[in-house]
Amino acid sequence: MRDFSADHRWLSINTATVRAQWPLDRIVDECARRGIRAISPWRDQVAAVGLQAVARQIRDLGLALSGYCRGGMFPASTREARQLALEDNRRAVDEAKTLDAPCLVLVVGGLPGALAGRPEHKDIAAARQEVRDGIAATLAYAQDVGMPLAIEPLHPMYAADRACVNTLEQALDLCDALDPSRSGALGVAVDLYHVWWDPKLQQQIARAGRERLLAFHVCDWLVPTRDLLNDRGMMGDGVIDIPRIRGWVEDAGFAGYSEVEIFSSENWWKRDGGEVLATCIERHRCAV
Amino acid sequence: MRDFSADHRWLSINTATVRAQWPLDRIVDECARRGIRAISPWRDQVAAVGLQAVARQIRDLGLALSGYCRGGMFPASTREARQLALEDNRRAVDEAKTLDAPCLVLVVGGLPGALAGRPEHKDIAAARQEVRDGIAATLAYAQDVGMPLAIEPLHPMYAADRACVNTLEQALDLCDALDPSRSGALGVAVDLYHVWWDPKLQQQIARAGRERLLAFHVCDWLVPTRDLLNDRGMMGDGVIDIPRIRGWVEDAGFAGYSEVEIFSSENWWKRDGGEVLATCIERHRCAV
Repeated sequence: MRDFSADHRWLSINTATVRAQWPLDRIVDECARRGIRAISPWRDQVAAVGLQAVARQIRDLGLALSGYCRGGMFPASTREARQLALEDNRRAVDEAKTLDAPCLVLVVGGLPGALAGRPEHKDIAAARQEVRDGIAATLAYAQDVGMPLAIEPLHPMYAADRACVNTLEQALDLCDALDPSRSGALGVAVDLYHVWWDPKLQQQIARAGRERLLAFHVCDWLVPTRDLLNDRGMMGDGVIDIPRIRGWVEDAGFAGYSEVEIFSSENWWKRDGGEVLATCIERHRCAV
Repeated sequence: MRDFSADHRWLSINTATVRAQWPLDRIVDECARRGIRAISPWRDQVAAVGLQAVARQIRDLGLALSGYCRGGMFPASTREARQLALEDNRRAVDEAKTLDAPCLVLVVGGLPGALAGRPEHKDIAAARQEVRDGIAATLAYAQDVGMPLAIEPLHPMYAADRACVNTLEQALDLCDALDPSRSGALGVAVDLYHVWWDPKLQQQIARAGRERLLAFHVCDWLVPTRDLLNDRGMMGDGVIDIPRIRGWVEDAGFAGYSEVEIFSSENWWKRDGGEVLATCIERHRCAV
């Protein structure tokens, strides 16, 4: 297991972590001047600055990406809407390629309409089938382009509205079905916030192996958690035994960045961005 | 699959559903006069009225129990505290026997101190081992008394503070380890709020079978869900396909009560108790 205590060379910042404070070009600059070598930006943040401008800025500063957020959201109630989702995923693949991302992260979607509070049906098995079909179609395109897809299992509390892939086992079953040769074109993003509770986590990380472990996200689970979406904790402030799980991931062959992704409307998003980044660096060294 | 549309003979009310409105003796009366044949009371509600008084009232009115809530909360940071938990579980078994409950429901506990917001460690594997030891010790006593224990897997969002048994598969693994002969002394309480999202749900319900399916709880998952604990929905108001899952449970051999358990600080707990019970009856017939 790598020693993170001496520096932060393996730290990546998911740009949602300071999205409330700064636009993306400022985030990129602030990361670079602190010696943070990698980021993972969101599509809306990129679009607000301009794809080519962001690509150039990142290249000029010598930054890497640890992933690109995000594709997915496949299920829809009409054939037309599903087709639009596939087209949007192809654009996301192209953007990820322009930014030289190592993978496009997929948040696969849930019941159609649920995210807007108006679920159009209750058939989660059907949504899961649409997710499988959507990944298969996107994978065909992504393989041509040479962009790996990372399925991110989301915590079961998001099964209805954000992602109906909810365990690492389920994500890996999809990988095995759609990419049986373990080609590297399809894998998983392991975000500890979503999977830390899983009694099969160690087993499934080992199953994933190097070929499937495309991204590793950290934050912490607070007790109590006051909001289902925007109350994630800074590493070390909650109950996730992050170093133990990082050990499993590295034992399985992962050697990439540890990406900090914190949604925190009442705490970290209200603080000075520089303080947030400084805390990420400090906690990366002592709590990851 | 049984037809629930014509009457509510298979409806049970978990008494937490109207705990904000009435004390337990009033709840029992209000249920009985509406032809509700079963309830599942909580220990603190029973204690507030008196165990013997409640037992007598239930007997006199000809009501049944569909379960008794609850035992569990096994993990603790000292040997003495773990011993106290075991003693408390034995008392819960005795109370369940006095009330002629068909099972004692176990909410097994999480990380010591987490429920009070002060987790004493982050070792969920150790907590799970303590849970296993605690169930084993309680089972030995419960078998002597003749009181089945029903492990209730709780939603993964409660893994830290309320229960570190979070899937039906995990609960059934415990059952198989501690009661390999499927004696009927150890099984599960399937609460749809906790397990509806699970991609392995149908498979694991079939695995459980009649001997392990000791209780069936219903409510609904709302989108959005505004609170992790107290924003459960009335059946039909959310996204759980309750009839489909009830079909699986009945196919596996379950023929008991459908128990309504709704924690709802901002909605159902603020309404008139009679309105809540009338709605439970109506929805039991059309949405369960």
